Amino acid sequence: MYKKLKRLLIGAPISSVHAEHQKLNVPLGLAVFSADALSSTAYATDEILIALAGSSYAAYTGLLSLPVAIAITALIALVVISYRQIIKAYPEGGGAYIVAKENLGTLPSHIAAAALLIDYVLTVAVSISSGVAQLTSTGLVPTVHAVSMCVGFTVFIMMVNLRGVKESGMAFAIPAYTFLASMAILIGTGLFQLFSGAPANAHVIQSSGAFNWADLGFLMIFFKAFSHGCAGLTGIEAVSNGVKAFKENRPARANVTMTLMGLLLGTIFLGLTYLAFGFHILPKGDETVLSQVSRAVFGGGFCYYLVQFSTTIMLILAANTAYADFPRVSSMLATDGFLPRQLMSLGDRLVFNNGISVLCFLAILLIVMFHGDTHALIPLYAVGVFICFTTSQLGMVMHHWRLREEHWQTGIFINGLGAVVTALVTIILGVEKFMEGAWIVMLIIPSLLMLFNAIRKHYDKVNAQLALPQDGYCPLAIDHTVLVLVSTLHRGTIPALEYAKTISDRVEAVHIELNPESTRRLRATWEEWGCGIALTILKSPYRSITEPLMEYVDEVEDRYEHDLVTIIVPEFVTRKWWHNMLHNQTSIVIKALLRNRPGKVVTTVRYHLEE
Amino acid sequence: MYKKLKRLLIGAPISSVHAEHQKLNVPLGLAVFSADALSSTAYATDEILIALAGSSYAAYTGLLSLPVAIAITALIALVVISYRQIIKAYPEGGGAYIVAKENLGTLPSHIAAAALLIDYVLTVAVSISSGVAQLTSTGLVPTVHAVSMCVGFTVFIMMVNLRGVKESGMAFAIPAYTFLASMAILIGTGLFQLFSGAPANAHVIQSSGAFNWADLGFLMIFFKAFSHGCAGLTGIEAVSNGVKAFKENRPARANVTMTLMGLLLGTIFLGLTYLAFGFHILPKGDETVLSQVSRAVFGGGFCYYLVQFSTTIMLILAANTAYADFPRVSSMLATDGFLPRQLMSLGDRLVFNNGISVLCFLAILLIVMFHGDTHALIPLYAVGVFICFTTSQLGMVMHHWRLREEHWQTGIFINGLGAVVTALVTIILGVEKFMEGAWIVMLIIPSLLMLFNAIRKHYDKVNAQLALPQDGYCPLAIDHTVLVLVSTLHRGTIPALEYAKTISDRVEAVHIELNPESTRRLRATWEEWGCGIALTILKSPYRSITEPLMEYVDEVEDRYEHDLVTIIVPEFVTRKWWHNMLHNQTSIVIKALLRNRPGKVVTTVRYHLEE
Repeated sequence: MYKKLKRLLIGAPISSVHAEHQKLNVPLGLAVFSADALSSTAYATDEILIALAGSSYAAYTGLLSLPVAIAITALIALVVISYRQIIKAYPEGGGAYIVAKENLGTLPSHIAAAALLIDYVLTVAVSISSGVAQLTSTGLVPTVHAVSMCVGFTVFIMMVNLRGVKESGMAFAIPAYTFLASMAILIGTGLFQLFSGAPANAHVIQSSGAFNWADLGFLMIFFKAFSHGCAGLTGIEAVSNGVKAFKENRPARANVTMTLMGLLLGTIFLGLTYLAFGFHILPKGDETVLSQVSRAVFGGGFCYYLVQFSTTIMLILAANTAYADFPRVSSMLATDGFLPRQLMSLGDRLVFNNGISVLCFLAILLIVMFHGDTHALIPLYAVGVFICFTTSQLGMVMHHWRLREEHWQTGIFINGLGAVVTALVTIILGVEKFMEGAWIVMLIIPSLLMLFNAIRKHYDKVNAQLALPQDGYCPLAIDHTVLVLVSTLHRGTIPALEYAKTISDRVEAVHIELNPESTRRLRATWEEWGCGIALTILKSPYRSITEPLMEYVDEVEDRYEHDLVTIIVPEFVTRKWWHNMLHNQTSIVIKALLRNRPGKVVTTVRYHLEE
Repeated sequence: MYKKLKRLLIGAPISSVHAEHQKLNVPLGLAVFSADALSSTAYATDEILIALAGSSYAAYTGLLSLPVAIAITALIALVVISYRQIIKAYPEGGGAYIVAKENLGTLPSHIAAAALLIDYVLTVAVSISSGVAQLTSTGLVPTVHAVSMCVGFTVFIMMVNLRGVKESGMAFAIPAYTFLASMAILIGTGLFQLFSGAPANAHVIQSSGAFNWADLGFLMIFFKAFSHGCAGLTGIEAVSNGVKAFKENRPARANVTMTLMGLLLGTIFLGLTYLAFGFHILPKGDETVLSQVSRAVFGGGFCYYLVQFSTTIMLILAANTAYADFPRVSSMLATDGFLPRQLMSLGDRLVFNNGISVLCFLAILLIVMFHGDTHALIPLYAVGVFICFTTSQLGMVMHHWRLREEHWQTGIFINGLGAVVTALVTIILGVEKFMEGAWIVMLIIPSLLMLFNAIRKHYDKVNAQLALPQDGYCPLAIDHTVLVLVSTLHRGTIPALEYAKTISDRVEAVHIELNPESTRRLRATWEEWGCGIALTILKSPYRSITEPLMEYVDEVEDRYEHDLVTIIVPEFVTRKWWHNMLHNQTSIVIKALLRNRPGKVVTTVRYHLEE
């Protein structure tokens, strides 16, 4: 039943030999890896406008948003150029964890990994929350259902990802390119309306009045808006983490994808911010800036809904990036022994099932805790991303310095500049967003570091204890006694008794007396049916089965040297599992208790009922 | 941890040899078994008044309540006299189930048992709801907490009962006698006030005006009120079900208890109804009739609170009767194979733990479903009781007829009259309360009958399959192959390999290849550490461990005749249970899959880590 349902939802297993066929080309790679970055434009402008509109410069919100957006676009360009270096140097798929581990050591790599894991969870939560906000902005979907819709979408993407990455690529190409087309139409039409001077539905640009750019207080507001807008950079690193997922000639394909993505991201982000400025749009609680811009340009109708729906789908699919990367990073950590081993294994569809499921669970937790409110989640977001940017760039500086490959000086300059700028931005983000929620992330990162270490320490201890002895193999002297637990003599008991005789010559049947009448009956049949095995009766004044048994097992163990006691538990198995509820489940308790005692082996000999 | 908590809440285990010491004398028996019957007076009058006040004779409510109460009291007398016969005939504890089973056959006994079980659940739900209603009537306890208080009390009584019946007897004697004393004071003071003609706080009796007793429509209302008031009879049978719980010379003690209880029940019920009439009390939604009567007599103050609190405690303890009887009846059914076997076994405090827990769960379900509203629960109640009364009396008629002991004609007359009257009352109750909720009970009873039969059929089938063969013992020819599952060779694998060698000469180690590198490493160490056992490598193209293993086990099984395959799974056990989460739990899956295949034995050889 479970198996059939799984196959229906997830698909048939895929053989290991097909691993290579699951790889991506550039158009598919762009669809899979840039969804996160590009869809950030759906909330980045909102965050800038909210920061400005809440300040003492509220009157100049639109005007001030432009320099902030330009600064962020410049940062995008810098980060993309820096990351091209990483892709070139790490064709196996770099990502902050690997780059930091190879060049900076364990602690920085753990900081990067912790930041990455947190940010992937936030990517899912923020993208899906914002996607649903785009839907509720249209007024077609009631706000009360927002949280449950978020949860539904999170589970849906988990399913898609459990099916495997190639099918994901196909499923995401159409919506991704629809999104790009709709953005082109929106920004093109909007700009035409603004510059033709006769927009059908739009306000015209009005002068924002005199603004004293030399005012120093402005800088504070600028940094605040800048730090909120940095949410637009999240997801840029996705390509470099996933180089491995590309087809042969990976670095080249990945670099083309990265550059294309950077250009598209900058264009859409600047375009939307300029339109918001041009159409005098201010943030509203119940409608996203994108929806307002789109409504202003198209006045509703087909194009408006195209923009909203394609953005929603793009955002929801953006979460897919995290579903591709979170399991990859956690599997790397697991391989190094810093996370549970189960995160390492590929499922039967060649994806990391456990990592995917863990991510889904954590994202749903966040969504429910923050009531699916994008704006409330944003302060937690982006800090982790910039920590990764910084460690990656620092790692690359070390990389160039160590290897001194061709053009290493240029490399150091590019990544050095990247490192300094992203480090500065990290500090700005940490300070500006600390009280709003960034402190949570700053608490979780050290906790994760401690967890990584504790897990590794445990694995090391276990491995030390399990290591084969240095002094070579020496056979164990095992003296072997078998106890068969008998409550009544029936057809299901006989095979257990016979089995006991085949595995040892020292066999004893043990009956725990709960009621003298049944002991009498047992003794009466024992002569004929006891298979020649001696029967021991244990009294149980407190009607407990486990206590007299445990005591007797200890006694038998003391009787012989090198003794190992096998306890055979006869069990009959009913045809339907729920029929088992009608039978005493004493053997479960006995097995659980014996589990914790060394030197005992528990064997269940089952008799299968036929109806 | 769990064990310590259990001991603290439930107490230390009690040895079987102490069973006799847990028995009751008359005063304790009255406290334990009559709580249910006596406390019915706390809601019986309410129900009569509600039925009358809602009719076209509302103006005569008080006056009409008297003949109804007198009819019910007569019925009480009849039922008590009938039950004295049962106690005499069944000193081992009669109860409807046993009487019906011995004299009428299986189906009637099942009907009685089903009705009994339903009624015990309702006893808990109704008594506790009414107890809490007495508290909220005082105004000291807010109504919003009523349901959670009900649940709390239900769990509390479960705990007390898990400790054992003797301690229950002690714990219930004081409140039971306090209740009797407070009722004596209330009824005595009230009657004195009414007849002395100068009551301090009371209204005086006014003539209820002319009432035409010959009016036939009155009969309809009379039956309605009568059927609601019959809730006052619930619990009468408790003594006869529990004769076994009395000290030596049980029937005599039980009969004295029964008669005393009947007298007290009739007196209190009539007394309260007369006071309600005398003080012109009408039913109110937020205050019980008892509270109104008590307030009218005492005008508040110590005596008022004494009545309310002692009644509350009595009602809550009344549920205890059900906690004593439900497990007893279900254990009888379980002994006969009609309910799951687990309900048969005495816990380590000499009580039926499982039955007690099931009752608690069902009662809480009912309380929550009916929002702890006594009046809503009442229509479901009493129908079952009267079904039991009728089957018991019918069974006794058969009993006298079959055995013809001394005075058998008197016996037939008494129980025959009882049977006819209670059968008539059952029909009246079924008709009058059908739409109000009795239909639920009438649906559950046949469902329970089907369940009883299905369970018995299952046990019969299992027993037939487990019966020892008719043709005598004949040794089984077992040919024995052992497969040891090896993922890597480490210190924990060696004992499993050595163990395999001690139990068979035909041993094979099996490794499932998930990754060629680890296979290579395994082969390299096998020469020295393989204990001389042959190693088989199974390929797994889909990275599944279970499928290749199952196929191989089938193959090995086909290889030899009479073959039995033992699969040995080496496992290491970490010191702290939660450390196990860091290790693959593949063996759990393997064991679960093998569980359903006949002819395989699974043995876990554990290696215990030291830290």
